[in-house]
Amino acid sequence: MYLDRIQSENDIKKIPEDKLPILADEIRQFLIEKISVTGGHLGSNLGAVELTMALHLSLDLPKDKIIWDVGHQSYTHKLLTGRREGFDSLRKFGGMAGFPKRIESDCDCFNTGHSSTSISAGLGLVKARDLRGENHTIVSVIGDGSLTGGMAYEALNNASKLETNFIIVLNDNNMSISENVGGVSKYLNGIRTADGYLDLKESIFTKLMNIPGGANVVKTIRKTKSTLKSMVIPGMFFEDMGITYLGPVNGHDIDAVRELLKDAKRKKGPVLVHVITQKGKGYTPAERHPARFHGTEPFVIETGLPSHPRTKANYTDVFSTIMMKLADRNPEVVAITAAMADGTGLKRFRNVYPERFFDVGIAEEHAVTFAAGLAAGGLKPIVCIYSSFLQRAYDQILHDVCIQNLPVVFAIDRAGVVGSDGETHQGIFDISFLSSIPNMTIMAPKNKWELSDMMKFAVGFDGPISVRYPRGIAYDGLEEFRAPVEYGKAETIYAESKIALVALGSMVCTAEGVRNALKEKGYPCSLVNARFAKPIDEETILSLTKDHDIIVTMEENVGSGRFGEKVRDLLDENNFAGKLINVCIPDEYVEHGNVEILKKEIGIDEESVLERIVKEL
Amino acid sequence: MYLDRIQSENDIKKIPEDKLPILADEIRQFLIEKISVTGGHLGSNLGAVELTMALHLSLDLPKDKIIWDVGHQSYTHKLLTGRREGFDSLRKFGGMAGFPKRIESDCDCFNTGHSSTSISAGLGLVKARDLRGENHTIVSVIGDGSLTGGMAYEALNNASKLETNFIIVLNDNNMSISENVGGVSKYLNGIRTADGYLDLKESIFTKLMNIPGGANVVKTIRKTKSTLKSMVIPGMFFEDMGITYLGPVNGHDIDAVRELLKDAKRKKGPVLVHVITQKGKGYTPAERHPARFHGTEPFVIETGLPSHPRTKANYTDVFSTIMMKLADRNPEVVAITAAMADGTGLKRFRNVYPERFFDVGIAEEHAVTFAAGLAAGGLKPIVCIYSSFLQRAYDQILHDVCIQNLPVVFAIDRAGVVGSDGETHQGIFDISFLSSIPNMTIMAPKNKWELSDMMKFAVGFDGPISVRYPRGIAYDGLEEFRAPVEYGKAETIYAESKIALVALGSMVCTAEGVRNALKEKGYPCSLVNARFAKPIDEETILSLTKDHDIIVTMEENVGSGRFGEKVRDLLDENNFAGKLINVCIPDEYVEHGNVEILKKEIGIDEESVLERIVKEL
Repeated sequence: MYLDRIQSENDIKKIPEDKLPILADEIRQFLIEKISVTGGHLGSNLGAVELTMALHLSLDLPKDKIIWDVGHQSYTHKLLTGRREGFDSLRKFGGMAGFPKRIESDCDCFNTGHSSTSISAGLGLVKARDLRGENHTIVSVIGDGSLTGGMAYEALNNASKLETNFIIVLNDNNMSISENVGGVSKYLNGIRTADGYLDLKESIFTKLMNIPGGANVVKTIRKTKSTLKSMVIPGMFFEDMGITYLGPVNGHDIDAVRELLKDAKRKKGPVLVHVITQKGKGYTPAERHPARFHGTEPFVIETGLPSHPRTKANYTDVFSTIMMKLADRNPEVVAITAAMADGTGLKRFRNVYPERFFDVGIAEEHAVTFAAGLAAGGLKPIVCIYSSFLQRAYDQILHDVCIQNLPVVFAIDRAGVVGSDGETHQGIFDISFLSSIPNMTIMAPKNKWELSDMMKFAVGFDGPISVRYPRGIAYDGLEEFRAPVEYGKAETIYAESKIALVALGSMVCTAEGVRNALKEKGYPCSLVNARFAKPIDEETILSLTKDHDIIVTMEENVGSGRFGEKVRDLLDENNFAGKLINVCIPDEYVEHGNVEILKKEIGIDEESVLERIVKEL
Repeated sequence: MYLDRIQSENDIKKIPEDKLPILADEIRQFLIEKISVTGGHLGSNLGAVELTMALHLSLDLPKDKIIWDVGHQSYTHKLLTGRREGFDSLRKFGGMAGFPKRIESDCDCFNTGHSSTSISAGLGLVKARDLRGENHTIVSVIGDGSLTGGMAYEALNNASKLETNFIIVLNDNNMSISENVGGVSKYLNGIRTADGYLDLKESIFTKLMNIPGGANVVKTIRKTKSTLKSMVIPGMFFEDMGITYLGPVNGHDIDAVRELLKDAKRKKGPVLVHVITQKGKGYTPAERHPARFHGTEPFVIETGLPSHPRTKANYTDVFSTIMMKLADRNPEVVAITAAMADGTGLKRFRNVYPERFFDVGIAEEHAVTFAAGLAAGGLKPIVCIYSSFLQRAYDQILHDVCIQNLPVVFAIDRAGVVGSDGETHQGIFDISFLSSIPNMTIMAPKNKWELSDMMKFAVGFDGPISVRYPRGIAYDGLEEFRAPVEYGKAETIYAESKIALVALGSMVCTAEGVRNALKEKGYPCSLVNARFAKPIDEETILSLTKDHDIIVTMEENVGSGRFGEKVRDLLDENNFAGKLINVCIPDEYVEHGNVEILKKEIGIDEESVLERIVKEL
């Protein structure tokens, strides 16, 4: 195994040149085997094996820097920088992260997770290098999907002024997580299939050269200003911005990529190296189903099928089903996703209502303002974005939707602790940032039936409204409690005395467990399903103050701007003499790992909550 | 006066064609006279007079829709839609807004204020129109400055797929608020000055046509795929994305613009109409000083000088001075602005340290992640962005700066109620959204000296840190209180008993007034300058519980996620038996108007606070 010879960065340089393809195969096998056990991002990593090897062969790490956009394609990079052992604990609590991490290795120079940040970060590192008089090489590796994010353009626009070297590798697999969208994708496709065009160019030039006086024309064209250069250079889109374009090159041909990187390192100024790769390369199921193998649960290598097939519906499935019903009933319902048709459960919607489905690419800012436009035009847009990605659109929600009080529905999947993707993906801030916005209503369902009921309510509501629900299996307990959803009204599940649990969304299930434990200990305990994080149900909550000494709010969100804060304000105003306990997530980032372990770590699991209550009894 | 004949939308169509230039002059005179009295956005409006007239002549309002990007250039639009009387109360409380407002007129179809939203919103209106089977015309008017914002690209990328009409007018004055930056600006400049290029193209074609067989080559080129079309079409950047490009045209030639709009209306699919205008057109001082006349205070028409020259420094001036000192002392200090070099007080810094100054364009997302890169590269970046615009970068602060705990300083000007720009510009959310982010420290100075001290402290701090300060005159009271700034420590100004005011930033001045009034009434009153909104000074605040019955927190921020919330948590945990009053901004948008009036309206002025305290006594 050549892979055994890789103990740390730059070891790859000792592998004989002609054995590099064998090493690539070994890496692929290693990744498939490990990820089939732990789960993780497979397709993007299989696509980037040779590209990563070429980068490591061309650079001197850790002096030189690679910034991996999004970062889920950095597994080969981790392998080549001595983190082979880490793959057994990949994305597990305390184990190796699925994304680049500065604390893991000197060779990880910048943490990533969300899309389209690498050119901005890289440009910062370039400017710092230049001002400090250093001279290492800095490379941002960005996918074509990430190029649909506006930040990437803001960064390209700024990079264009550079007079020193900065390499941007465009890792182009013609995919975001789902298929790519929009004009840029079309444009890149044009380059990819430009053989015909290149032939054409040659034929024009050949014709010109064969015409008396034509040589002068060719010379004139070659000498002329950039707008004319597109005759001789694909990638004018970038050249127009002032960025040298090199490529396209086959990203699975290590030598060819190295050759281009060598050229790129010589340029003074920004260079874009266009590398064509195939997502899932070398593993047939991943090549065939790139969306499914983008991020995968453990799977059986032979078949590509899940090792532990799900038997219960998750919240995304429930959402998927109710979206179809809502769309069937109401022709004004339209759905917007930011490159997450699969992840958010909109595949069926897209297939049945293609003209009412909008995948805008990895472009959350646009997604939200676009939805505001749709609403202003009389439709009922449902914006489907994961909690952590919706952070990108805070201003658009505040400025474009809520100031105008437009009826946009936000369906916020992955709200709460999401687990193995770690800090960057935890959906633990949405109650805070949404609560700060006037005119916004926030709901969270206790179980799968309530998600459907809340979506129905949301579509009928005349203003901005959010429904947040967690990743994973949809809770199917408490089926018998299904009081109609009413604006700003909580649902009392058990009305007793002494202790009252006021739980939001996913925490109702936890609260049920806490209540059972308290009952076993002989304490009476009420359980209220809060339903609305904003506005809170003042009447129901105040009524609890009469016969309860301890009121406990429970939510999966950080403390500042939490739901429990509004309850505390209300109880203080009304001079509640008992004890209020706010269960929420402490003011720190939550790392990767199993959700159950993480909840325990941050003190929002059943046992931790119970302990806090018992202390007060 | 032809202007007198304009009572409502479409009245302009009754003006004889040959009198339109006279009407344009009248509008200009009107705007100069009115804005010289009320203040407001002058330059952009003078630049858009003929463009707006051409749009109104070409469209049928309110059936057709115009979305004004940013919206500060909509004064002529307001004038042509029957809002002439409104100019006397422009930007005053209860008066006409300085931006488009749906509640003001049917002809304002979408509110704006922040940059780069118009194409997204317009595309939403287009899709709604098409799905509802309507057939009006929709026009987004966007400046070249707004094109530096990533959202605009996300939207263009999505617009490219359209098969129905959507007109994007690029109002190109080669300016954001300051001069424009980056590759796109360079590219547009290339088109603007393309006469030479057009000549060149013609000369190549003429040469070809005169060569035997050359006609065939020209034919081949004309017929060939888009990449080659840049030989015959400027605007390939847009064409590459699939957007038809028309122009450039002189934006002060009404007929020429109308002609192009006529063409644009006929296209199936997205069309970009490139209009060249001059900011400040027709008023010499505004032509000469476009940045100063972007948004202006009342001025003397003859000289262009302020009617009421400032005699005291504002916070921006103070910031400007301390930035020079910090940069002189520390070569690692670099400054980043998003098209606001003037507004944020960085002009001197830019002139003295051009290589350490970065104007990234209207690109707050990039600005923040770029700063994270600079910090990761060993520099000390100071990000200077107004509070309301920093909302755009919530995710970048959370994801790129704070997860990595990078030492980026956020200098947040215009924090608090800003006044005449209204809802979209109030800086009343930053404590909320920043507090929700782990690892973030938030400070606010009580007076001008403290702003300097805090900036010094921030530059020496090893982690993400924010300093928020308000628009307007820097408070120069309490000079004698200048205890050194220490991490997480408040400053006790007056230590008495019974009532304690714990005020943050701008509210310390208000608190001083409240305290004086209370003293006059015979009550003792302590005054604590909180200094840090996060973390709060638990020790100092808890010490107040001993001899105070009423503790009052005071801040210029909305309630959810406020500074006072953390104080409430602390006091509740410690069973404070007295009364806690949280003075903050209610959960609603704050409209435009004089800051003093607004503060009264929302209950954070001296009198309102006093009233709340007296009620408890």
